Amino acid sequence: MEIREVFARNLKAARQAKGLSQEELAFRAGLDRTYISSLERRVYNASIDVVDRLAIALDVEASELLKRPPGTKIKLLR
Amino acid sequence: MEIREVFARNLKAARQAKGLSQEELAFRAGLDRTYISSLERRVYNASIDVVDRLAIALDVEASELLKRPPGTKIKLLR
Repeated sequence: MEIREVFARNLKAARQAKGLSQEELAFRAGLDRTYISSLERRVYNASIDVVDRLAIALDVEASELLKRPPGTKIKLLR
Repeated sequence: MEIREVFARNLKAARQAKGLSQEELAFRAGLDRTYISSLERRVYNASIDVVDRLAIALDVEASELLKRPPGTKIKLLR
């Protein structure tokens, strides 16, 4: 699974686990709502600053947002 | 600790644990040596694709490269 998909899935799951809308998460992280939506659709190649900003807003570790589900194969974006 | 510093430290530690030079890691990851050196000096705000490419070259999980040492405070880049 490509890292953008890993991040998209983890971001959405963490946001929903907190009961936050994309709008609320965007506000907390100081980012634009449309950017959150794009990240959850794997459109952008997020930077580690953005990953950390979102992790802080979600009160999770940044590394958690890049964790692959056990057993998934690594697939590199060519 | 800012995420760029977390990544820089983890990247250097993982590279040295594998006994790789910056040159060898750059070759394996298909990146430029000077870019590796810059990342280890916190110069750039790496993307998750780059983090994953380096993790694969180092045979570690991408999430490991963003893991904060226990007890470190989160500091956001303003």
